[in-house]
Amino acid sequence: MLGKFITFEGGEGSGKSTQARLLADALAARNIATAMTREPGGSPFAEAMRHVILDPATPPHSPLSEALLFYAARADHLDHVVRPALNDGVWVICDRFIDSTRVYQGVAGGLPGEVIDTLNEMIVSPTLPDLTIILDLPAELGLGRAYARRVDRINPDTEADAYERRDLEFHWRLRGAFQAIAAAEPQRCVLIDAAQDEQEVFAEVWHAVESRLLAAGA
Amino acid sequence: MLGKFITFEGGEGSGKSTQARLLADALAARNIATAMTREPGGSPFAEAMRHVILDPATPPHSPLSEALLFYAARADHLDHVVRPALNDGVWVICDRFIDSTRVYQGVAGGLPGEVIDTLNEMIVSPTLPDLTIILDLPAELGLGRAYARRVDRINPDTEADAYERRDLEFHWRLRGAFQAIAAAEPQRCVLIDAAQDEQEVFAEVWHAVESRLLAAGA
Ligand SMILES: Nc1ncnc2c1ncn2[C@@H]1O[C@H](COP(=O)(O)OP(=O)(O)O)[C@@H](O)[C@H]1O
Ligand SMILES: Nc1ncnc2c1ncn2[C@@H]1O[C@H](COP(=O)(O)OP(=O)(O)O)[C@@H](O)[C@H]1O
Ligand SMILES: [Mg+2]
Ligand SMILES: [Mg+2]
Repeated sequence: MLGKFITFEGGEGSGKSTQARLLADALAARNIATAMTREPGGSPFAEAMRHVILDPATPPHSPLSEALLFYAARADHLDHVVRPALNDGVWVICDRFIDSTRVYQGVAGGLPGEVIDTLNEMIVSPTLPDLTIILDLPAELGLGRAYARRVDRINPDTEADAYERRDLEFHWRLRGAFQAIAAAEPQRCVLIDAAQDEQEVFAEVWHAVESRLLAAGA
Repeated sequence: MLGKFITFEGGEGSGKSTQARLLADALAARNIATAMTREPGGSPFAEAMRHVILDPATPPHSPLSEALLFYAARADHLDHVVRPALNDGVWVICDRFIDSTRVYQGVAGGLPGEVIDTLNEMIVSPTLPDLTIILDLPAELGLGRAYARRVDRINPDTEADAYERRDLEFHWRLRGAFQAIAAAEPQRCVLIDAAQDEQEVFAEVWHAVESRLLAAGA
């Protein structure tokens, strides 16, 4: 049987990595083979593309060019990691996927949704997520968490990425774009209030996974 | 008035760079402002992508990922170089363009033509070439020229690129694919016998430019 493909989406600091890890542990405890991965990246070529995308030395380019880089990486990640795992019956949990491209390149760059639709058809289809968890959080809360995480680790002043440094209004638009995807694709997506504490959020994540993917007949 | 967009296509050593230069000189002698450019590359971001594409350290990836890198570069090259020049009335001469992607990724990688069609619609349209010169040459002749060019310059043994090193049958298939494009799109393309000497080839190039782009009413 094919594994299930679950993606986590949401703004910076919304808890994607935290919840992905909790979910992987819970599935493992159920003896379900699980692979965790992330985008951009996840395979050697895709990680090389991640480096190109994030490298400040990469010359400026349009949201369309950026989206094409993401999809070059995504095609490889799907071919070399996601599809082989799913075909082996392994469940794949991916930290960010197509909805992040739609939201970031769309909101930040004005890339039309139809361009993303066409790329999804060409490159992702038929490997769409069985379930997408969208973690919904007021922008200032997420940025605060991301900031705190940085302070815990390294010099906070040097680590904010290009998106984090944008103004709050921008982050509110990102949040609205994620909410719009959840509303437009209720079959695939679940919107979860990520302002709750970790375990409360996870209870809702687990409920979605159980009722949609583990219940008899799912 | 918009400038004209002319592309040169054909196998390694078929004389693209030589003929592009001769054409730029001939247009300049007619007081036509001309810009020469090349793909992959031609703008800062696209040259960075050219480096990624050609770098042997870039991890292996599929023809689809490779095509997406080419189109990320192409989108930028069109936005920053080709379209601004054409809009200024400058003629643009480009060494390799969409037909090379179709031929190399198609023949070497089996990428379906419809994928290239979709990418052209999304990224290139409406900036299709006004004229494409396809230089047609028996594969062994082109490879011999490319080899001789290398001997003239540097250590011949270290410089053959990944395509040059493929077997002759592969290069015959590339040639056939270029011929098929010329046959399918006679409005845009002219196929020229590139086994003739430089000036004979150029006479045919110039005839195509004159009759198709410079003649009254063109
Ligand atoms: N529900 C939560 N409440 C408070 N803090 C959280 C919660 N979930 C995660 N965090 C913390 O917030 C920061 C960002 O979480 P993370 O999972 O890395 O988010 P993301 O991957 O979406 O950027 C981390 O320091 C994490 O420990
Ligand atoms: N018509 C021709 N006959 C013989 N040699 C040629 C001709 N055109 C170009 N050459 C030589 O062949 C080599 C390849 O030409 P070039 O224009 O660089 O081809 P391309 O750009 O298509 O790879 C160069 O050394 C060039 O001087
Ligand atoms: Mg994270
Ligand atoms: Mg050349």
